[in-house]
Amino acid sequence: MASIDEFFDKVISVKLPDDRQSVDILDQTLLPGTIKRINLHTKEELWDAIKKLKVRGAPAIGVSAAYGLAVLANRIDASDFDSFYKEFKEIKDYLASSRPTAVNLFWALNRMDDKALSVKDQSIGSIKETLFTEAQKIRDEDVAISRNIGELGFGLLKDLKKEGKEIGILTHCNAGTIATAKYGTATAPMYTALEHGWAGSDMHVYCDETRPLLQGARLTAFELYNAGINTTLQCDNMASMLMKQGKIDIVFVGCDRVAKNGDSANKIGTSGVAILAKHYGIPFYICAPSSTIDLNTATGNDIPIEMRDPEEVTTMWYKERMAPEGIDAFNPAFDFAEHGLITGIITEKGIATAPFDKAFEELGI
Amino acid sequence: MASIDEFFDKVISVKLPDDRQSVDILDQTLLPGTIKRINLHTKEELWDAIKKLKVRGAPAIGVSAAYGLAVLANRIDASDFDSFYKEFKEIKDYLASSRPTAVNLFWALNRMDDKALSVKDQSIGSIKETLFTEAQKIRDEDVAISRNIGELGFGLLKDLKKEGKEIGILTHCNAGTIATAKYGTATAPMYTALEHGWAGSDMHVYCDETRPLLQGARLTAFELYNAGINTTLQCDNMASMLMKQGKIDIVFVGCDRVAKNGDSANKIGTSGVAILAKHYGIPFYICAPSSTIDLNTATGNDIPIEMRDPEEVTTMWYKERMAPEGIDAFNPAFDFAEHGLITGIITEKGIATAPFDKAFEELGI
Repeated sequence: MASIDEFFDKVISVKLPDDRQSVDILDQTLLPGTIKRINLHTKEELWDAIKKLKVRGAPAIGVSAAYGLAVLANRIDASDFDSFYKEFKEIKDYLASSRPTAVNLFWALNRMDDKALSVKDQSIGSIKETLFTEAQKIRDEDVAISRNIGELGFGLLKDLKKEGKEIGILTHCNAGTIATAKYGTATAPMYTALEHGWAGSDMHVYCDETRPLLQGARLTAFELYNAGINTTLQCDNMASMLMKQGKIDIVFVGCDRVAKNGDSANKIGTSGVAILAKHYGIPFYICAPSSTIDLNTATGNDIPIEMRDPEEVTTMWYKERMAPEGIDAFNPAFDFAEHGLITGIITEKGIATAPFDKAFEELGI
Repeated sequence: MASIDEFFDKVISVKLPDDRQSVDILDQTLLPGTIKRINLHTKEELWDAIKKLKVRGAPAIGVSAAYGLAVLANRIDASDFDSFYKEFKEIKDYLASSRPTAVNLFWALNRMDDKALSVKDQSIGSIKETLFTEAQKIRDEDVAISRNIGELGFGLLKDLKKEGKEIGILTHCNAGTIATAKYGTATAPMYTALEHGWAGSDMHVYCDETRPLLQGARLTAFELYNAGINTTLQCDNMASMLMKQGKIDIVFVGCDRVAKNGDSANKIGTSGVAILAKHYGIPFYICAPSSTIDLNTATGNDIPIEMRDPEEVTTMWYKERMAPEGIDAFNPAFDFAEHGLITGIITEKGIATAPFDKAFEELGI
C-alpha cells in the first residue's frame, strides 16, 4: 500500500518540477485505465493540455496556467520591462484562449498579470522570481482551503467512528484531488483522515457513477481506490438501496455555487441524493470553499442550469445509440440541493448550519 | 402518425400468423435501432430466440412458448395419443431447456401439457386445435389483465387532465408492450388512453434510462416514441429535477413481486423514485397483475435481491472500462418501494391502497 504522500505524488493534478522548465500534469484523458504524467514544456503543449481536458477542474486549471505562465515568462529574453511585458502578455492571451469558459483560468492568469505589473520597477530576474512565487501562492492557497475543509470533515468522521467498523461515505461526481491542487473538496475529509494515520479500511467510500459523464466511475473511484481507501462504485439509482441497507453513515459532495439561503448547486443528481439522505436520516454535507458561496444569489432557483447535448445521454459512452433515433433527452448538467435537506456546508472557515445566511455572516463569508 | 392498432401490429412481442406455420416475434436484440419481425418455424429457431433474448419479458416468453408448442404439435404425424404425446413431450422439454430460470416459460408449457392430457381421448386433430385454443387463451388472459390495469390507470390520467396541458408521467425500467402480450403494465394506462382517442401529445412520458442495463432507454423510450407519445429520456439521477420543475404529475412503474404489506420489488432504482415522488408530493403507482402479489411474503425485506455481475456497471455498455481495474461495484438487480411510499397498487381487479393487506383481501386477491 502506497502512503498518502506517494499517492499524491503519483496522481496530483499539477506539479512544478524542481528545474522549473515545464509543468508536470496527470493526463486525465487516459483515466481510469492509465496513470501517465506528462511534462508540458511549450506554450503550445500547455494550451493543448487545457483545451483537450488533459488537466481539468477549476482549481487545477488555474494552477496549471499560473505555473505555465511563470515557466514561459522565465524564458523571455528581454532587458527592459516593456519588451518583457509585451511577450508576457502574448503568452498570457494565448493560454487564455485555450478554454474560453473556464473562469478560473482567467482569474489565475489575471492575478499573475496584476502581479507582474505591480513589480514592474524591479529587475527582470526579480520579476520572473516573483511570478514563480505568485503561482506557488495560487497553488498553496487552494491546498490550504481544501486542507481546512478536510480537517473539519475529518472531525465529523471521528465522531462517527466505531471500533472495528468502517465508516460508510457516499459521494457523487468528482470533487477530488485531480480536479484541484491537492485534497479536493468532497474527498478532503478522507485524504485528511489518511494523513492523520487512519487506514484506508477505516472508511468505505461508495461512489455514484454520475451519469451521463461518469465522473464518479472514471475519476472519483479511480483516485480513492488508488489512495488505498475501500471503494465501491454503484449506479446512481442504487444509492437508495445502499442507504436502506445501513451502509452509508454520511454523505459528502462538492458544489459549484451556494446561494445565500444555502441552496447548493452541484452536479446533476445531487438534489436526489440529498432527498434520499433526508429520508433515511443520514447527514448530508456540502464541501464548499467560501469562494463558491455567492451572497448575491438569493436561492437555488436563481442559479442558471446549463443544459447539455442530449447525445451525452443517448449515445456518448455507449459508442452506439442506446435510445431510438429522434428521441428527446433531458440533460441538465447541474441541479441543487435545497437548503432544508443540507445538514451542513463545510467551508475552510467553519461548518455552516441552518439558517445558512446567518451562519455565513458569522463565519465572515 | 401511426394509429395505436398499427403500432401494436408493428412492435407487439409475439403474434400467431393466420397460417399457423410459425411464431412471429419482434427481434428485441436489434432494438432500439432496428424494428425487425422474424418468423420462427422450427423448434430450434424458437429455442434460439428465447435463449438469445430475441423475445424477453415473462408474459411474452410464456406466450411465445405456448404458440410455438401449438405450432410444432400441429405438425406431429401420429395416429394415436401415445405416439403423439411422446413427440409432444420431447418438443416441450426441448423448449423448456432454452431459459432455465424463466418461470413463466415452464408455467406456460406445463399448462399446455396439462391441456393436452385433459383431452387425450379426443382425436389427434381435435387435440391439436385444443392446443391452439389454449395458447390463444394464455395470450388473451394476459392481454385482458393488462387492459384492466390500463383502464384503471387511464381513470387516474383522466382525473389529472387539464385542458391544453400534457400530463407528465415518469416511468422506470421497461414494463411495456414488448415484455408482455400487448399492453404492458406500467405502459398500459398510456396505451389505453390512445385507444380511448387521446393524442400522443396529451401525455408526456419521461423515461428513466435505468442503469445498468438501460431498459428505459433501449425499450421503454423506443416503444412509447413509436406509439406517437411525447417521450423524453433522462438519466436516473435527473428524475428529481424533473419533479422539482413540476414536469411530473404521476409515476407508473411495473413490479416483480408485491409483499403482503404492499412493499413492491421492482428494478433497482424504484425505491429512490418512490422517495422522490413522496418528497415532491407526486402520486406513485405500482402496476401489478394480481399474480405478482405474494401473500406468503410478509414484507419487502423477505424478497431476495439478485446481485449481478459488477462488469455490468464498470464496463458493459461502454465497450471499454469506465472504472479502474480491480474496483468493486455494487450491482443489485432490484430493490423495493416501501409500502408507505406507494399511493396505490393497480391490479386488474382494482386499485389497492393502504392498508394494502386489507385492500388485497377486499379485491379477492
